[in-house]
Amino acid sequence: MINTAVSTLQVIMSVNSVNIIGGGIIGLAAGWQLARRGISVRIFERGSMGRGASFAAAGMLTADAELGFEEKKLYRVSRESLGRWPAFAHLLEEDSGVSVGYQDQGTLVVANDRDHEEALRRMFDFQLGEGVDVSWLSGEEARDLEPFLAPGITGAVLASDDHAVDNRAVLEALVTAFQRAGGELFENSLVTDVGPDEHRPRIVMDDGSDFDADVVVIAAGAWSNQIKGLENGKKPPVRPVKGQIIELQKVNPFDLKYVVRGPNAYLVPHLDGRIMVGATSEEMGYDTRVTAGGIYKILEGGWEIVPGIYDLSLTEIFVGLRPGSRDNHPIMGFSDVPGVYFATGHFRHGILHSALSAEEIALEICESVESEWFSDFRPQRFA
Amino acid sequence: MINTAVSTLQVIMSVNSVNIIGGGIIGLAAGWQLARRGISVRIFERGSMGRGASFAAAGMLTADAELGFEEKKLYRVSRESLGRWPAFAHLLEEDSGVSVGYQDQGTLVVANDRDHEEALRRMFDFQLGEGVDVSWLSGEEARDLEPFLAPGITGAVLASDDHAVDNRAVLEALVTAFQRAGGELFENSLVTDVGPDEHRPRIVMDDGSDFDADVVVIAAGAWSNQIKGLENGKKPPVRPVKGQIIELQKVNPFDLKYVVRGPNAYLVPHLDGRIMVGATSEEMGYDTRVTAGGIYKILEGGWEIVPGIYDLSLTEIFVGLRPGSRDNHPIMGFSDVPGVYFATGHFRHGILHSALSAEEIALEICESVESEWFSDFRPQRFA
Repeated sequence: MINTAVSTLQVIMSVNSVNIIGGGIIGLAAGWQLARRGISVRIFERGSMGRGASFAAAGMLTADAELGFEEKKLYRVSRESLGRWPAFAHLLEEDSGVSVGYQDQGTLVVANDRDHEEALRRMFDFQLGEGVDVSWLSGEEARDLEPFLAPGITGAVLASDDHAVDNRAVLEALVTAFQRAGGELFENSLVTDVGPDEHRPRIVMDDGSDFDADVVVIAAGAWSNQIKGLENGKKPPVRPVKGQIIELQKVNPFDLKYVVRGPNAYLVPHLDGRIMVGATSEEMGYDTRVTAGGIYKILEGGWEIVPGIYDLSLTEIFVGLRPGSRDNHPIMGFSDVPGVYFATGHFRHGILHSALSAEEIALEICESVESEWFSDFRPQRFA
Repeated sequence: MINTAVSTLQVIMSVNSVNIIGGGIIGLAAGWQLARRGISVRIFERGSMGRGASFAAAGMLTADAELGFEEKKLYRVSRESLGRWPAFAHLLEEDSGVSVGYQDQGTLVVANDRDHEEALRRMFDFQLGEGVDVSWLSGEEARDLEPFLAPGITGAVLASDDHAVDNRAVLEALVTAFQRAGGELFENSLVTDVGPDEHRPRIVMDDGSDFDADVVVIAAGAWSNQIKGLENGKKPPVRPVKGQIIELQKVNPFDLKYVVRGPNAYLVPHLDGRIMVGATSEEMGYDTRVTAGGIYKILEGGWEIVPGIYDLSLTEIFVGLRPGSRDNHPIMGFSDVPGVYFATGHFRHGILHSALSAEEIALEICESVESEWFSDFRPQRFA
């Protein structure tokens, strides 16, 4: 399906300026990396910076626990980005002065009945075969690590390398670091059109104003195919995949240390006492309604693996629209439109992939090298 | 337990002025009725008018469906108030110009398994014996009336006389009608102290200012025992009973006509498309946190009887603190402190009882008659 032989490298002599459409984690992280290299970067965001799917995310950095059958190509890149995250977080904190709440305690994937345990065991064997650092725990061993797990947990996989980060703090840090590096932010700025103009890509805003630059990066998430100017067949084939997620607040004596993933929900504890519990995955177009059923299923899925959430405060409900591509893999690289670069389709993995994506985007644009990490994710595979 | 022989009538010659502590449905409704009789009335509310438990209510007027064993004394008054509601609503709409969304379609009490059906049948037989207008429906007959009931509903009781009202509209109407009748509202006005002063009750505010009147009505709901000046033993013995409730919004093609009560939740459809689903009943002191478990249980309880709520928008979550007395019955009448009248402890029945309570409070205060409707609810029964 995926043609890795297509060379998509566009040699643009001496890139000095980049316009990025989309102020989510991919746009902001790429903008920061580009600005650090001395490029003049503008980011245009239709709403507020970092308030879309990146904000509604839980903050899991779980490459290993998420490795499923038939996902080896994605895993290779997820694992690499996971490995880069500690240094990425460190540099971001240095550049911004903002702590990003990085946590390295690991992830527990739990099963609470015979069927789920069998499925988890098969996944575990597969992951072991792939060389992933996972270990099998009995229910009792799992509860020794995490006492608030449900008594009915029959088995668990500990993925020690799977970490977590406070995605909201990351977004805040990126906004600061990007601006400190000289980048310019444009909020409430809707780009309606993009197209080549005397061989330089030009973007047009909904108020008619326009901006040109050497390169335009389309990192507009689920809205990446809403921009005119790219004819059909040249738009990135992304669709919105709705996710509802809830925010709880720890109340003593409840505590949770590990990220816990169950059959129907996951829980991600953060250093500030928040616990994100999510998430639905719904094909509902651009619908952003909170629904009774979505919240019911998340609460049930969380409660069945960590019943102690019952008494916690429910402080917020968020809805995000993830950008899912036709094969649910990212879409990375220069498109067939001169100077127009796609960086979208990260689906459920935007936070995890942002470290690698930002660095590789900057490399490809600034140094005209072809990143081997994006070889399976080129826009041209959908041609 | 309840001594109905105590006469609590205080003969106050010529009442011209009343201060009411509490701007919930009881305080506002009583204030309106008193002001209509030409009394000079002030209402003091610690927060915003009508934003406490009265606002968080669902709007059910269900005397019949709620009639349980051992609740005959409460039922007698509930039934009388239910009977007065149509005229009360009509007069309120006339006085205010605000529509209060009165609905007379009835209530369906449903059972969704053998055990609940047996319990419902026993209650039905008891209600029939008491002369209540209820009829038994098979699951199929119930679904003919209300097609969105769950397929698993095995039986239902239709209480045709049990109605509903838009409690928020009622509160808004009362605020308008009270002011049109000459009443004065004081918001964000915390009364800290009450006591007799030269035989006239005087209230003291937290800023030190004070007001006197011929009579003070304490209608401060769950906060009615927080007012100083009434010594121990003379305070109304109320406690807060926390209720969490959610607001859904109808989405086509879903519809719901009847109030539906199941074993673990009820649903109250309103004319503007809202559906209130509630409610928890928690002994948590003055805790007003929304909790994961509270919302989970409400959603589960609603979903199991009307599964079509799954796709509805969840638009708001409310928490109210109901005033529960020591025996969970209202506390109505003059206290042992001269000129101080209690009107609190309405627990889960404040909206339903407000029609009767307001009229009888006005009678007792203005005309020095002793309402027979309050004979079981006197403050002195706790002495």
